[in-house]
Amino acid sequence: MKLHRLRPPVTASKARHETFDVIFGHDTKAGRNFDLVLIVAILASVLVVMLESVASIRSEYGGILRAAEWVFTVAFTVEYVLRLWSVGRPFLYARSGLGLIDLVSILPTYLSVLLPGGQVLAVVRILRVLRVFRILRLAHYSGEASVLMNALRASRYKITVFVFAVMTIVAVVGSLMFLVEGPEGGFTSIPRGVYWAVVTLTTVGYGDIAPQSALGQALATVVMVMGYGIIAVPTGIVTAEIAFASRPSVGRRACEACSREGHDRDAEFCKWCGAGLGRSGPNDEE
Amino acid sequence: MKLHRLRPPVTASKARHETFDVIFGHDTKAGRNFDLVLIVAILASVLVVMLESVASIRSEYGGILRAAEWVFTVAFTVEYVLRLWSVGRPFLYARSGLGLIDLVSILPTYLSVLLPGGQVLAVVRILRVLRVFRILRLAHYSGEASVLMNALRASRYKITVFVFAVMTIVAVVGSLMFLVEGPEGGFTSIPRGVYWAVVTLTTVGYGDIAPQSALGQALATVVMVMGYGIIAVPTGIVTAEIAFASRPSVGRRACEACSREGHDRDAEFCKWCGAGLGRSGPNDEE
Amino acid sequence: MKLHRLRPPVTASKARHETFDVIFGHDTKAGRNFDLVLIVAILASVLVVMLESVASIRSEYGGILRAAEWVFTVAFTVEYVLRLWSVGRPFLYARSGLGLIDLVSILPTYLSVLLPGGQVLAVVRILRVLRVFRILRLAHYSGEASVLMNALRASRYKITVFVFAVMTIVAVVGSLMFLVEGPEGGFTSIPRGVYWAVVTLTTVGYGDIAPQSALGQALATVVMVMGYGIIAVPTGIVTAEIAFASRPSVGRRACEACSREGHDRDAEFCKWCGAGLGRSGPNDEE
Amino acid sequence: MKLHRLRPPVTASKARHETFDVIFGHDTKAGRNFDLVLIVAILASVLVVMLESVASIRSEYGGILRAAEWVFTVAFTVEYVLRLWSVGRPFLYARSGLGLIDLVSILPTYLSVLLPGGQVLAVVRILRVLRVFRILRLAHYSGEASVLMNALRASRYKITVFVFAVMTIVAVVGSLMFLVEGPEGGFTSIPRGVYWAVVTLTTVGYGDIAPQSALGQALATVVMVMGYGIIAVPTGIVTAEIAFASRPSVGRRACEACSREGHDRDAEFCKWCGAGLGRSGPNDEE
Repeated sequence: MKLHRLRPPVTASKARHETFDVIFGHDTKAGRNFDLVLIVAILASVLVVMLESVASIRSEYGGILRAAEWVFTVAFTVEYVLRLWSVGRPFLYARSGLGLIDLVSILPTYLSVLLPGGQVLAVVRILRVLRVFRILRLAHYSGEASVLMNALRASRYKITVFVFAVMTIVAVVGSLMFLVEGPEGGFTSIPRGVYWAVVTLTTVGYGDIAPQSALGQALATVVMVMGYGIIAVPTGIVTAEIAFASRPSVGRRACEACSREGHDRDAEFCKWCGAGLGRSGPNDEE
Repeated sequence: MKLHRLRPPVTASKARHETFDVIFGHDTKAGRNFDLVLIVAILASVLVVMLESVASIRSEYGGILRAAEWVFTVAFTVEYVLRLWSVGRPFLYARSGLGLIDLVSILPTYLSVLLPGGQVLAVVRILRVLRVFRILRLAHYSGEASVLMNALRASRYKITVFVFAVMTIVAVVGSLMFLVEGPEGGFTSIPRGVYWAVVTLTTVGYGDIAPQSALGQALATVVMVMGYGIIAVPTGIVTAEIAFASRPSVGRRACEACSREGHDRDAEFCKWCGAGLGRSGPNDEE
Repeated sequence: MKLHRLRPPVTASKARHETFDVIFGHDTKAGRNFDLVLIVAILASVLVVMLESVASIRSEYGGILRAAEWVFTVAFTVEYVLRLWSVGRPFLYARSGLGLIDLVSILPTYLSVLLPGGQVLAVVRILRVLRVFRILRLAHYSGEASVLMNALRASRYKITVFVFAVMTIVAVVGSLMFLVEGPEGGFTSIPRGVYWAVVTLTTVGYGDIAPQSALGQALATVVMVMGYGIIAVPTGIVTAEIAFASRPSVGRRACEACSREGHDRDAEFCKWCGAGLGRSGPNDEE
Repeated sequence: MKLHRLRPPVTASKARHETFDVIFGHDTKAGRNFDLVLIVAILASVLVVMLESVASIRSEYGGILRAAEWVFTVAFTVEYVLRLWSVGRPFLYARSGLGLIDLVSILPTYLSVLLPGGQVLAVVRILRVLRVFRILRLAHYSGEASVLMNALRASRYKITVFVFAVMTIVAVVGSLMFLVEGPEGGFTSIPRGVYWAVVTLTTVGYGDIAPQSALGQALATVVMVMGYGIIAVPTGIVTAEIAFASRPSVGRRACEACSREGHDRDAEFCKWCGAGLGRSGPNDEE
């Protein structure tokens, strides 16, 4: 969803314009206050859903929790309708990612009146937490988030190779442990061996399945030391990318002759065409 | 608390001046010896509090431990009074962070005479360990500590974005596992599912709750591999910042003769034309 | 195996040439489709082997799984024969790493007719997953994989030193815990102590063996904090290498006009004087 | 121990010179072969000690293992005597770190004849593994080891600050959990709480002590997420140092005027005194 495509209708009334600024904007004081109230309401409603899933709390405070749930749902419904009303192209908003999440946040409560099976609906309501990502559009955070996203995107091929290598190791090691330990050690099938291998290689180590025989423990030792080394690889990939993404080494000067960018800060001539770059202008440094 | 604002009174007696130098200073031999004795006393008194909480040790050596506790408390009280007496602005010190910790270190023992409920007071006494941070003001350490603090502060927005993303993942995954595994697998509520998700994603892996069903284990496998990748992100953020903060960084001074930039912070002459760079101006260092 | 040494016979028929391009190549549309089908078949056949090892699934769907196994085996056999037929030097292919894996992927199913003992053969069949690495030869992935491999190769001496240091720590710590805890705490022998030390130092922490005595727990605390610091070392090694390997690195070409170095690898003109740098010489790139 | 101070006596016989070269040297073919045999003997003797600690193996192969132990001990004794004989200053060698380890490797077996209590002596024999570090003096490894050591030494103040911060967190968190969970959750004393905090913060997570109450689990969640972030700090410190230690950015040119080093590769004038640095000489690059 591109936020700038969501505009109030050009010929809208002043009320719709102001509503738009409050609900969608982050620049006015009212808009920031609305953001704050919304965050608190979202987190509180998620807390209510979580507490309602605890049997002892539900049996004692069930009524209060259900009432709170309805208050939040009605409030979110009003907000959703106001969003549809104030935005210039309601369908564009309704079909966008955040618009769908807004809808999914309110539907389950209404459906629970019609349908039984509250647990699944409760879990769907948890997705409200995704609405929090609206605030990540605010200044500071969106820039930092995009550095992180760029670092992850730049390393996607390296990470794919790495995940494939890990999957292969896990399949082979899991099968070997199934052979070595067998059902006595809890390795009743190859998938369970693979599950154990993932638990071990990621250093989670529940201990619900653990090798019992000397050979199995020796193999596990090798896997663990390997995991030790392997955990270094994704860290190295992401670190190198983040360090690269946040360093200020390459200037933004464009060569006036060939208009290509990417010159070092200290370059005096274009490395692409050899033309002089001239003195660094004031807008060279960020 | 700015240490340089804590000065002995201008018109103070020689004794107060000397006491101030010993208690607050780290430059004289007496001051360094005092620091050393204080560190040993703090760590010993923390050890006493810890040992007193062990039932078997308390029943056997309870009398000795209580005696040691009173010795430390009286010593710290004398020290606290001397600090108040020797410092120029006692209230400034008493209201500062370290001053409050100094007070909190001695109060619980006196309160334990008046009030029952020793356990809570014992835990408060553990806060004495924070007094150790006085030594971090010493040379070497304070510089290094500030590099670490700056690296963490510079990455606070990235880390906030990251923590929000982790919280969202944990809420959604915990709810899913509650749905998939249910009470039989120990996932009796969504908060317990979230607890399990945190235990798994951080690779702690107690094993007190672990998925039993095949579907639950498959989901857990995905979460673990994800956690494997996710652990790389904060490491990458902090590493990039530390590498940036601790490198012999390049200033923004321009040479007045050839107007080129890129000199090291400690350079005195232009590396491009050999002209003197002059003293670093006040706005050169950040 | 050098792929470019695997060529169709020079005097081969058109059919053999086309078969070669489809089976070994990744450039034609048919070749890419073949790759895709092969990947799906490999992963599906690995899934079948895994599911067959689960007792409950085998008892219910055993017939279907065995039939699927034979379908995959026959298909892989046809593929293997086509590879042998279309390649110029069949023995070179058959003796190469990937050629041996191709053979190992089909042999166990035929052997299972002659020999009992299916479990070992099932595990050998899992090695089919290694065939997936054919796709890593595709564009993007092979470049990224080689960056990772180079980073690991460049740090092999550092990692050897590190692994030796860890092995020494583990041997000494494991022996100490055997002495301190003894058989009561589950430390029945030095190898078990070493196993525990590896489980702890790598932060896996199954909890199947854990120190019971106060002294053992104190020693374990020291080991864990040490492990905390030690885990940083391989990460640091690999990160530094990856950062070094993936940066737009600076070549050692000197400009013939001004003889200064420090040009980017992709520079065509000297950034210092603007003269043409000429094509990269053969010994410019490592 | 500085190896170059260990020289054969100046007036030594040819036999002593040759013995010295074989035993202490790594440059001759005989010296390298001796190193190899020694490594194998050390690892084999450590394996014997480990196997002897396994009750079932000792009861069956105890005689063979004891015989092997005596063979290794006699061989190491002969080697130790030859080292003392061939070296120019025997006492210097005997008092050096490696010399003491050589002695400790052979003493326990002789002592076991005189004294009972073999377990402690067995553990002391494990220290033989430290003799392996002789090979780290070989080419490649010693350079890489010193890069690692320098990186760790350069970050010792940062790591001290970090360890102190972790110890403080662990003491406070451990006490809080003792207060919140109490003996029912296994937190019978503050030291046990601290043990749990270390197990959790280092992400080892045995699961032998785990919070049971909702409040305890909530607190544990915070500790785990904190540990997640904290694990990034030592990694960042060490990575930054390794990256710094292994980068080739600063040349070794000394200014001819003021003879100070540390100039950038592209510097033309001394940044310390402004004198011209002249063209990079051939020995400028490593």
